[in-house]
Amino acid sequence: MSVNTAQSERPELSRVFEHIEAKKDQFVIRLLDYLRHPSISAQNIGMAEVAELLVSMLSRLGLDALMIPTSGHPMVMGRWERAPGAPTILLYGHYDVQPPDPLEAWISPPFEPTIRDGRVYARGAGDNKGQHFANLLALESHLAVHGRLPCNVLVLLEGEEETGSPHIADFLRANRDLLKADLVVTADGPLHEAGQPIITYGVRGIAAFELRARAANCDVHSGHFGGVVPNPIWTLVQLLATMKNADGKITINGFHDDVMAPRDIERAAAARLPQDSEAIKRGLGLARLDYPADRPLADRLMFHPTLTINGLHGGYGGPGSKTVVPHEAFVKCDARLVERQDPDDILRKIEAHVRRHAPDVEFVRVESTPPSRTPLDAPFSQLVQSAVQIAHGVEPLLYPSLGATLPDYVFTKILGVPSFVVPYANADEANHAPNENIKIDCFLKGIRTGAALLDALGGVVHSS
Amino acid sequence: MSVNTAQSERPELSRVFEHIEAKKDQFVIRLLDYLRHPSISAQNIGMAEVAELLVSMLSRLGLDALMIPTSGHPMVMGRWERAPGAPTILLYGHYDVQPPDPLEAWISPPFEPTIRDGRVYARGAGDNKGQHFANLLALESHLAVHGRLPCNVLVLLEGEEETGSPHIADFLRANRDLLKADLVVTADGPLHEAGQPIITYGVRGIAAFELRARAANCDVHSGHFGGVVPNPIWTLVQLLATMKNADGKITINGFHDDVMAPRDIERAAAARLPQDSEAIKRGLGLARLDYPADRPLADRLMFHPTLTINGLHGGYGGPGSKTVVPHEAFVKCDARLVERQDPDDILRKIEAHVRRHAPDVEFVRVESTPPSRTPLDAPFSQLVQSAVQIAHGVEPLLYPSLGATLPDYVFTKILGVPSFVVPYANADEANHAPNENIKIDCFLKGIRTGAALLDALGGVVHSS
Repeated sequence: MSVNTAQSERPELSRVFEHIEAKKDQFVIRLLDYLRHPSISAQNIGMAEVAELLVSMLSRLGLDALMIPTSGHPMVMGRWERAPGAPTILLYGHYDVQPPDPLEAWISPPFEPTIRDGRVYARGAGDNKGQHFANLLALESHLAVHGRLPCNVLVLLEGEEETGSPHIADFLRANRDLLKADLVVTADGPLHEAGQPIITYGVRGIAAFELRARAANCDVHSGHFGGVVPNPIWTLVQLLATMKNADGKITINGFHDDVMAPRDIERAAAARLPQDSEAIKRGLGLARLDYPADRPLADRLMFHPTLTINGLHGGYGGPGSKTVVPHEAFVKCDARLVERQDPDDILRKIEAHVRRHAPDVEFVRVESTPPSRTPLDAPFSQLVQSAVQIAHGVEPLLYPSLGATLPDYVFTKILGVPSFVVPYANADEANHAPNENIKIDCFLKGIRTGAALLDALGGVVHSS
Repeated sequence: MSVNTAQSERPELSRVFEHIEAKKDQFVIRLLDYLRHPSISAQNIGMAEVAELLVSMLSRLGLDALMIPTSGHPMVMGRWERAPGAPTILLYGHYDVQPPDPLEAWISPPFEPTIRDGRVYARGAGDNKGQHFANLLALESHLAVHGRLPCNVLVLLEGEEETGSPHIADFLRANRDLLKADLVVTADGPLHEAGQPIITYGVRGIAAFELRARAANCDVHSGHFGGVVPNPIWTLVQLLATMKNADGKITINGFHDDVMAPRDIERAAAARLPQDSEAIKRGLGLARLDYPADRPLADRLMFHPTLTINGLHGGYGGPGSKTVVPHEAFVKCDARLVERQDPDDILRKIEAHVRRHAPDVEFVRVESTPPSRTPLDAPFSQLVQSAVQIAHGVEPLLYPSLGATLPDYVFTKILGVPSFVVPYANADEANHAPNENIKIDCFLKGIRTGAALLDALGGVVHSS
């Protein structure tokens, strides 16, 4: 197959853009309707209902829609393959959302979508319902205007991204035939702080785990037993302190062995990105960035792994004091990984470290996803860039990698096709946090981006 | 004043013991009634009600009873001073209790006292309601049998012991005249594991504090911001790891400066004590004691300070995973101190350590009480020993110090009198923990001990 890239806007696309402009208020109202349905995978709330809702939506669009069960939450698929000779794009997204707690920190409740100051506030507004819904509206708009799509389209929406996508890899391995595509595009994550569009060619992986320490069979009086009974919080503190030092260096044996130095093309793209750590500090009220202090911002997110404590809990946490030696404590951690770290290997190394330093502490694997990278010079790369430019009127920034984790490796490493992440949400979407939101302007540009992508792919002809 | 010790049981005491035996079932029922009233000082629950209840009880006994307000919870006092020439004993106790959580771990609710297998289960059964109530019944029994007490008696019950007795020192300084006594006896803490009575000549002090770390103004996504946004849990972990090493040595500068080596008489008394760390390990389900591993059991509790983490909380603690960089975390700690460590000095040293290692972390003083020691050869020491032996029929073990903290320093350092702690509760009273209890047998022996003490003091005549 050879690829023939359409570099300029085609007249068919202008009519689709006009349709989007005419329907925009109705599109926002339909987004609110969608966000009203909770779908919290970690707590198994509302998952089947939202999957069924999506199947109905896809069918109404005219796609062949189906729900495919997994041993976890189901996959939702839609297919439109009536453009012979044109390439096939797989549009991936996820319909599950993060738990919304702490609820008291939300200005409006997480599942009562509310518009304030040009933004839609709701859990899932940015991550990821607002984004894949924009793509569905792009399909709808093409179909409404032209009665057909310019290229072949597969839609894949999973329900377990927020719990680490435990079944998507097996699903893709078992269904390669169903999922034959030439490229994958994922709308997820945020635009640049300044609103500039971006295309991301990779993501970090993740290896999440929990450590559980126990000592006595109940909490005991810290006077009668302090100095006598071991303290599981001290055990975790001492153990964690052997895993990362005060300078921010992860000190687990072999942790960095497979970290791949970035290629020149990646270094150059990263160097072209506007770096604004001051804006991050201002936005989050920070006096400084995390240690190590001298690491460039792009390097922190693209080329270096992390070890984050997500939560540590043990002993008394109520008002006043309670002078006890606690009897149990746990810590939840995630490590973000870069190419070519393998999460299974990393988890083995962490477990070995725990065995060596604190043999009584229980190590529990929670989640793992490998990192992914599509070369900046891969097929379709130029085409995706020009579509984004047409939709936004601005040249996109090219990110060799995103800091976050998406199951992108299943496309690059299992399906073996180029995969591009084209985010639609605003940078302050507050995903995974209270008051998650998407700017209505970003949502509408997302619909335009989806439409432009389909249009551009219609200009590509398979030569074989 | 010279002291003339009564070494053997006097006939008046036998009649009091007979009265206690005859009334024992009724005494237990009255204990249940008392324990039914919550009095949680840290949460300000039920404090005034229980103070009023005690004033009524003391008045009904025939003592001059009064409630004396403090800027916290009130002091309850009772006085009986109609034995000219006899010494005055001050019986101290505290009517406040620890918070009862975790509630789900209680077999019967904490404020619905329940008898099972010869024990009364309720919050406060051992610490300290069951113990000072035994002393009140000892007074009642003497008065019922003889119409008078053998010596002068002051009863002092405070309501803030479980929150570090913030007002008792000022109260004693301001009311020295009201509190002129020759000795202080406190019934608190547990008997030896084997049930043998003990007399304690000192207690550890306490310096409690909280450390609070904050970074961003909200929790953020650990992928989008991991490696960029500082993590307050890592900050606390790294800070705490500089305060105590993995071998159990406290590494705060100057922390051990004022630790007094035990006198020969203390070492000898400690050496005579039955040491059974195996029993502690069995009882609490422990594979080992706390580090340092080679420290003798008595040394751990009597002659060495501690640094205990009572609770550490930050970030996500619910089911499943939540991949956030948390924005705040706190840790509650207490240090148990030995003579002659001064809690104010220790808190200053800890604060200086925090300033040096983690200047962004907030240091909050929570509670401080100095340690206390009465010499083993102090006046009344022999008399208290013989009274305990008469009540129990067994020679008491002499503890130079208790591991726990009581505001005993106010008696030895402010009033300047010898102070003896004579515990009545069983060793497995589970104080500060779920299913707190007192054995009925221990409670009754406590009443006998109080009665024998009063009787023994009646045999002492002031010569001046």
